[in-house]
Amino acid sequence: MEKFEVTILGCGCALPTTQHAPSSQIVNVREKLFMVDCGEGTQLQLRRYHVNFQHIYAVFISHLHGDHYYGLIGMLSTFSMLDRTSPLHIYAHRDLPRLLKPQLDYFGGSLGYDVVFHNIDTTRSEIIYDDRSLTVSTIPLDHHIACCGFLFHEKPTLPHIRRDMIDFYHIPNFAINTIKQGADWVMPEGNVIPNARLTRPANPPRTYAYCSDTAYMPQLAEHLHNVDLLYHEATYLEDRIEKAVLYKHSTARQAALVAREARVRRLLIGHFSQRYDTDDVFLDEAKTVFPDTILAKEGLRIVI
Amino acid sequence: MEKFEVTILGCGCALPTTQHAPSSQIVNVREKLFMVDCGEGTQLQLRRYHVNFQHIYAVFISHLHGDHYYGLIGMLSTFSMLDRTSPLHIYAHRDLPRLLKPQLDYFGGSLGYDVVFHNIDTTRSEIIYDDRSLTVSTIPLDHHIACCGFLFHEKPTLPHIRRDMIDFYHIPNFAINTIKQGADWVMPEGNVIPNARLTRPANPPRTYAYCSDTAYMPQLAEHLHNVDLLYHEATYLEDRIEKAVLYKHSTARQAALVAREARVRRLLIGHFSQRYDTDDVFLDEAKTVFPDTILAKEGLRIVI
Repeated sequence: MEKFEVTILGCGCALPTTQHAPSSQIVNVREKLFMVDCGEGTQLQLRRYHVNFQHIYAVFISHLHGDHYYGLIGMLSTFSMLDRTSPLHIYAHRDLPRLLKPQLDYFGGSLGYDVVFHNIDTTRSEIIYDDRSLTVSTIPLDHHIACCGFLFHEKPTLPHIRRDMIDFYHIPNFAINTIKQGADWVMPEGNVIPNARLTRPANPPRTYAYCSDTAYMPQLAEHLHNVDLLYHEATYLEDRIEKAVLYKHSTARQAALVAREARVRRLLIGHFSQRYDTDDVFLDEAKTVFPDTILAKEGLRIVI
Repeated sequence: MEKFEVTILGCGCALPTTQHAPSSQIVNVREKLFMVDCGEGTQLQLRRYHVNFQHIYAVFISHLHGDHYYGLIGMLSTFSMLDRTSPLHIYAHRDLPRLLKPQLDYFGGSLGYDVVFHNIDTTRSEIIYDDRSLTVSTIPLDHHIACCGFLFHEKPTLPHIRRDMIDFYHIPNFAINTIKQGADWVMPEGNVIPNARLTRPANPPRTYAYCSDTAYMPQLAEHLHNVDLLYHEATYLEDRIEKAVLYKHSTARQAALVAREARVRRLLIGHFSQRYDTDDVFLDEAKTVFPDTILAKEGLRIVI
């Protein structure tokens, strides 16, 4: 199967701890790398987990709280020192270029590659990125400032060729491509072999949704139906639900309720508050509602 | 003796590694904390080495390369979340406020404490900070952009009272303070006990100099005569002296030459290039010229 995996670089909340780095993830789709959020120290996490800096094509920033973007400027600077030449695309709220401009200008044009900002509208769900294997859409979230999640949606792939049937009917190699595209095969004597006998269905397109930071949004489920993996923030437990409401974050149970309602395949939780001694309590709480829950952890890699 | 110590938070060079954090140090003078430089991730190093965030009174920034200041904005934000109310003083090149302004403005006045910028002139040596126990002066350095070091100079303290003499002459407690200030003591019968018999000389004022980043500057020694501890960058070894010249950095040997010429008591080297497999090679090279050399390391605390 084509590569589609997520690596957690950081899953802590806003206050720095020695347990967790702030939010950042790498989504690897067929060796093209996409970063989601970029908290302070993310470039060091890239080193630590042996992510190839040069393969990062784009960065998606969910919102402009520091723990989700303060690592950008240092990473941009390091890319320059490492002689990057290909453009880096940054998808974020329209305020971001303005926030970084003086520091970017300070390089005096010597960065050596282009930083291309793409403004996103966090208030609605729309496709913001599209290539031949993937689309990325925004998912509006409910936080204190403009904030959205991202839905990575693999494009349908071609069906698998049945090698045994190809051999059986002595079908020449030049015909394989058209059969992959859906053509039947006409034998020299005129018999038609239907495409369905020559192929197996393609793998169903896979999906990954990233939702952080957000208050509990039961209506989120409508964007997330059947996703293969849902990352949903779980800053608190139910014992501090009043803080979750106040700061527009979610509890582990609420993350699990969204996952259950949306019938996702697996739930990944993170953005853990430093107020709890261990992360296992988040897992325990979420699992009472949604058993297929995974605890995020720096360095964790999940194949989708 | 009154506390005067340096803690290394980071001693790496510009490229991030998992071995070293970028430049940052804490100078503790009688429990008042001063930070020198603040590379990305410094706030995490503060946590890691149990530095009390709230006691940081001022930050001195040597120059505006990212590995010396990208950690500021995250630290300022965290101070706010930790309910800091006392002003934070930042001494830096005049461009710094402009670089941080959009991000500071983005807090919308909700930081909760004042950030007070003090512009420094990196081209000359002058006192930029002065309190009752300390002065801090700039030391011009030779780098690709405006850059200076900092000389921390303890103020003279009062002499020590000789408790045995006080008891012997039955001198009452109320007189101790004036004797500390230098007064003689007149006995009831008129005999004068000279101050020198009642006190021991004060400890000589101590000094700490921070010099990073800089090309080799033999003339630096004139600012550094007899300092108790000199931190001098040692980005390269002599085997890459052409890179040191090109990038305006120093070799370990050059740092040691400055230390020897200035007759400092101890030399501390850091800002190590990631090109070398081990830091010991820096120590070895420096020691051939100046034996009292110490290798910087994250978490190292040196009493001056």
